[in-house]
Amino acid sequence: MTSQILQSDIPASLIDLGVGNPAPELLPLDLLRQAAAHALAQGDAAPLQYGFEAGDVRFRQALAVFLSQEYSLKIDFSQLFVSNGVSQALDLICTLYTTPGDVVFAEEPTYFLALRIFADHRLRVVGLPTDEHGLRIDALEDALKRQRPALLYTVPTHQNPSGATLPLDRRRRLVELSQEHGFLVLADEVYHCLSYGEQPPPPLASFVDRGAVLSLGSFSKILAPGLRLGWIQGRADRLQTLAQSGLLDSGGGLNPFTATIVRSALELGLQQQHLDHLRRVYATRLAALDAALQHHLAGQLSYQRPESGFFIWARLLGGLDAEQLLANAKSHGVSFRPGVRFSSKGGLRDFVRLCFAYYDQARLADGVARLADAIAEASAC
Amino acid sequence: MTSQILQSDIPASLIDLGVGNPAPELLPLDLLRQAAAHALAQGDAAPLQYGFEAGDVRFRQALAVFLSQEYSLKIDFSQLFVSNGVSQALDLICTLYTTPGDVVFAEEPTYFLALRIFADHRLRVVGLPTDEHGLRIDALEDALKRQRPALLYTVPTHQNPSGATLPLDRRRRLVELSQEHGFLVLADEVYHCLSYGEQPPPPLASFVDRGAVLSLGSFSKILAPGLRLGWIQGRADRLQTLAQSGLLDSGGGLNPFTATIVRSALELGLQQQHLDHLRRVYATRLAALDAALQHHLAGQLSYQRPESGFFIWARLLGGLDAEQLLANAKSHGVSFRPGVRFSSKGGLRDFVRLCFAYYDQARLADGVARLADAIAEASAC
Repeated sequence: MTSQILQSDIPASLIDLGVGNPAPELLPLDLLRQAAAHALAQGDAAPLQYGFEAGDVRFRQALAVFLSQEYSLKIDFSQLFVSNGVSQALDLICTLYTTPGDVVFAEEPTYFLALRIFADHRLRVVGLPTDEHGLRIDALEDALKRQRPALLYTVPTHQNPSGATLPLDRRRRLVELSQEHGFLVLADEVYHCLSYGEQPPPPLASFVDRGAVLSLGSFSKILAPGLRLGWIQGRADRLQTLAQSGLLDSGGGLNPFTATIVRSALELGLQQQHLDHLRRVYATRLAALDAALQHHLAGQLSYQRPESGFFIWARLLGGLDAEQLLANAKSHGVSFRPGVRFSSKGGLRDFVRLCFAYYDQARLADGVARLADAIAEASAC
Repeated sequence: MTSQILQSDIPASLIDLGVGNPAPELLPLDLLRQAAAHALAQGDAAPLQYGFEAGDVRFRQALAVFLSQEYSLKIDFSQLFVSNGVSQALDLICTLYTTPGDVVFAEEPTYFLALRIFADHRLRVVGLPTDEHGLRIDALEDALKRQRPALLYTVPTHQNPSGATLPLDRRRRLVELSQEHGFLVLADEVYHCLSYGEQPPPPLASFVDRGAVLSLGSFSKILAPGLRLGWIQGRADRLQTLAQSGLLDSGGGLNPFTATIVRSALELGLQQQHLDHLRRVYATRLAALDAALQHHLAGQLSYQRPESGFFIWARLLGGLDAEQLLANAKSHGVSFRPGVRFSSKGGLRDFVRLCFAYYDQARLADGVARLADAIAEASAC
């Protein structure tokens, strides 16, 4: 227990391209002050009481309007359950839908901290191969011949870390397989709205009526992580299972107070404006990181340029081990996430994940210059 | 999925003495508007970022000052971990400290919704006998000869539902036994600050360094349930286990945005003023419910008058089954929680839990008059 305030306590001297956080200067303090003032001036104390288990209907209606627009899809509020974000949603689903020892299928690579939540529930993670288009359905079909997972966890759009986006035909087949084989697909769709180029295929949220799919969304990447507010989109009967859990029965809906403030942000159009702003800024930062990598590290790193999300996922071409490189990089004042952190089987040792969301263009360029020095030094050894 | 907003949707025609919620008119909307305006005008965006896993140190310091005063105990912020309230704290502890099939000891009667959280984690609840002073230590010692529980769940002060308060000598012995037998005591201390008469013994929070004790606290009963904000007080190494879980590692601290608003409520003295006000109002309501019961139902109900909490726990003397009485009561426009809901073994069928917090004096008197009619009618059958 230190006296820390933030989860990532980054020294000023370090450029940490490993974090997956929004940039401090993009956190919308004024927006939330305006939304809170609006929400708490309505004379309505209901959001201070134990809330309805699925979440305040007025918030879910405002969220449904926003998502219908963003997803180009007609969404009804009854398909939405309010969560504390994707991490809490995963945790609750593991409690209610799994037993220790159960198998979870995940992409290789996958979001490394989801693996930690599965580990706390003593689940066995089986990593499935991916290619530049995400999860390989042939590999999934093979794996299903050997075992039936309780859950399949996927980041279908702008994957963390790889940036890959699953094409529509694979989405359809994945949903069919969930029906045929009786496993639940947990689609982590937090990056779906963060597209800076071509629009992605429809989210897995659009398949919730056709398969065993729960789509997990969050305000963490599009508004502020500290709100701890998100949603689960699914068929009403599946959401009912969550709403009837002991946790919800005892504590009521998960975040009524914050939800009513964010409802004002949605209804006043502030969320949409902020997201439009984020997309413009992140597009510029992605271009800056890409340009710096091309300038300093062409031929030493290989990657598929993403058009979305927070990250560039790059392979070190010089035979370097990313974890070994890390110590060296830190001595040059730069950091990143080594690929092995995203593997459920200790692989991907020649990959690095670089975040372009947290720093401005100048710091990104400086960070890549430092990384190039570190790689040059490590390669010379 | 209905279009409900509140967890308890009580028709205007019903006086529901069964709820355990604060009264709507006591929910401090103006206080929270003032606190939010103060907190969000500081120019500090840190509470919008992924927060430190144990919780923002500045909030924990303000909470430590408040609790030190309320508990008459020197509390350091390093003993405090920010939760989303007792329900979420119980859920997290079950995930990290238990395996399906493990035994949990609980009081008989106990808080019925804690039982539901234990059931979701597939734990086996063993109910231990209580008397007018709460948990019987001799019965606990007997039970420990037969099995070792993973957890013991207790509401030591102003128990829900019974109102009993565990004396100091029993507290000491319980803590010793947790050390001797290696089980974790989860003390739900949400009613500790709601004393309207004699002060209770020191909370189990004061024993966290002497035994395997975690004390669970919450703003639900002293400020507003919709905040979903609480704390776990414990030894730093035990809190570290919670802070290092996958849920916290992935999502960061549990409620940084709300915590920073409540920090303003603490630092501006608004929480203390509100709690002082609640104690005055609840004392009056307790007296009103007691007087109405004496007036309408003397000789038909027996109870130990509490000096604290939210509830009167009363035994029906006429041989009535409380669950059977319930349908009759509802037709008279009144409701309550039947005792069997608080039993882990289907007992306590002649008890009712009546809440004095939710309604004002006139409605309480009216509710008891209706209850007397229902009992008279049921007794005449």
